[in-house]
Amino acid sequence: MVIECVPNVSEGRRPEIVAAMADAIRAVDGVRLLDYSSDASHHRSVFTFAGDAAGVERAVLALFERAVADVDLRTHRGEHPRLGAVDVVPFVPIQGVTMAECVALARRVGTAVADRFAVPVYLYEEASSNPARKNLEDIRRGEFEGLAAKMASEGWAPDFGPAVPHPSAGAVVIGARMPLIAYNINLATNRLDVAKKIAAAIRHSSGGYRFVKAMGIALESRGIVQVSMNLTNYEKTPIFRVFETVKREAERYGVAVLESEIVGLVPSAALNAAAEFYLQMAGFTPDQVLENKLSTLKPEG
Amino acid sequence: MVIECVPNVSEGRRPEIVAAMADAIRAVDGVRLLDYSSDASHHRSVFTFAGDAAGVERAVLALFERAVADVDLRTHRGEHPRLGAVDVVPFVPIQGVTMAECVALARRVGTAVADRFAVPVYLYEEASSNPARKNLEDIRRGEFEGLAAKMASEGWAPDFGPAVPHPSAGAVVIGARMPLIAYNINLATNRLDVAKKIAAAIRHSSGGYRFVKAMGIALESRGIVQVSMNLTNYEKTPIFRVFETVKREAERYGVAVLESEIVGLVPSAALNAAAEFYLQMAGFTPDQVLENKLSTLKPEG
Repeated sequence: MVIECVPNVSEGRRPEIVAAMADAIRAVDGVRLLDYSSDASHHRSVFTFAGDAAGVERAVLALFERAVADVDLRTHRGEHPRLGAVDVVPFVPIQGVTMAECVALARRVGTAVADRFAVPVYLYEEASSNPARKNLEDIRRGEFEGLAAKMASEGWAPDFGPAVPHPSAGAVVIGARMPLIAYNINLATNRLDVAKKIAAAIRHSSGGYRFVKAMGIALESRGIVQVSMNLTNYEKTPIFRVFETVKREAERYGVAVLESEIVGLVPSAALNAAAEFYLQMAGFTPDQVLENKLSTLKPEG
Repeated sequence: MVIECVPNVSEGRRPEIVAAMADAIRAVDGVRLLDYSSDASHHRSVFTFAGDAAGVERAVLALFERAVADVDLRTHRGEHPRLGAVDVVPFVPIQGVTMAECVALARRVGTAVADRFAVPVYLYEEASSNPARKNLEDIRRGEFEGLAAKMASEGWAPDFGPAVPHPSAGAVVIGARMPLIAYNINLATNRLDVAKKIAAAIRHSSGGYRFVKAMGIALESRGIVQVSMNLTNYEKTPIFRVFETVKREAERYGVAVLESEIVGLVPSAALNAAAEFYLQMAGFTPDQVLENKLSTLKPEG
């Protein structure tokens, strides 16, 4: 079982404090720290680690231990919106685990955080039981500074923990979501209007695919434009469908697709789905992938 | 490091003997037995296991121990050509290992087999240093019954071991090769001539791609035809190129591709290459695949 966890912490300017947080995660059995990075202007750090449910739970609690001790939101100023020392904790199902299990994990970790640190917890995305509290942006609106008032208003009692903010650590948003894929398609043109029109055609907010966020931007140094996207559920809105739609929409303006690119990581299943589509594969199952077969077998002897 | 090994043994009729061979492989630390199956008419069994270099070496030697004790080629009759009790041992690079390392492993195992069991060893495929002794079929021609005469003839001294066959166990062919992909493309027609013409167009032996073996066959019960293939090097002759060529050749006869199918296992990289091609992905690297990143990282604590 592999669950990915990508907590965002409101500390991006003191490398030694961030390194101590990374060490706290590394010290947990059954968890691997894959990556972490800090942004000073955002005053924020993002950690990526993976493990089984018990492992990632321990690692989140270890991270809280450090963050509640070392981060004080009362003096924190950065460009990125935030409402807590540990601001947001998403659990992401990667392998051998269902979304329902990640939701259960989010609730369990939320309960533990509230009990142990007296930090109020909001559940979001798949873990949310309230449509008005599903999107991170809605929960975070007002930020730390507006949190006490917001928590006192109707509909904003936290899912777990006290009904008032932790004095220095604020609140935290914990939940479960599909892996995000950062995906860009570059067009063989410098016409920014074309990229913007295509982005509007495919993104959810303006009538496009359910799990696509997109914008058109210029890559000035290369003299081309890009449809820059986040795919938020690659099972329900797969890469190949988005690619084919962008290609077709571009044709309508006499523009060709130059290339596409994945920024950062992509689950193997998202690429396999593209191979399956284009090769018109019948009856393909993930356990035909040699590496999957190797990883799911138990050691024998 | 993951190396796959697919030894073929000349015993397919005594399940208890085959099961003892499987147990001998399972008992080796660092090795996983993925599959084994026997064919009574061929009088032959195929084992598939994987592990690191040291593990698969120990497993091959453990298999020899059983096979040399339990198989006697002097009384062995089956439909499949063979020259040894353990007939052929290919090492296949899967992950974190080069072909050169698999060749070195084949030579090391060959030396050990010759020393320990007095079985002569021929190296084949990538491990061969002699173009006339690269193909398995060429080495095996004449089979066990013609082996003594063949070994005495010019150019057929073994690579390792005695220059005469082992009395009961014959000789063995050991080497390294890329993973085979069994790949079929079904055509939306019952015209067998079309499948045969396309097979001839794409297979190496009649002028096609270097690493394709192909034939056209009828799938009577479905009323369609199939181009049935083995892809012997998916890096140099990738699946997507074969698929696109078959599709284009079929068009020339007014025939559409109905679907394609992979029989058995396929390395993840072969599917990723198809995704990369069709999605026109720029600058993609295997370490962007989340699962690869997880598997290559060492446990940290």
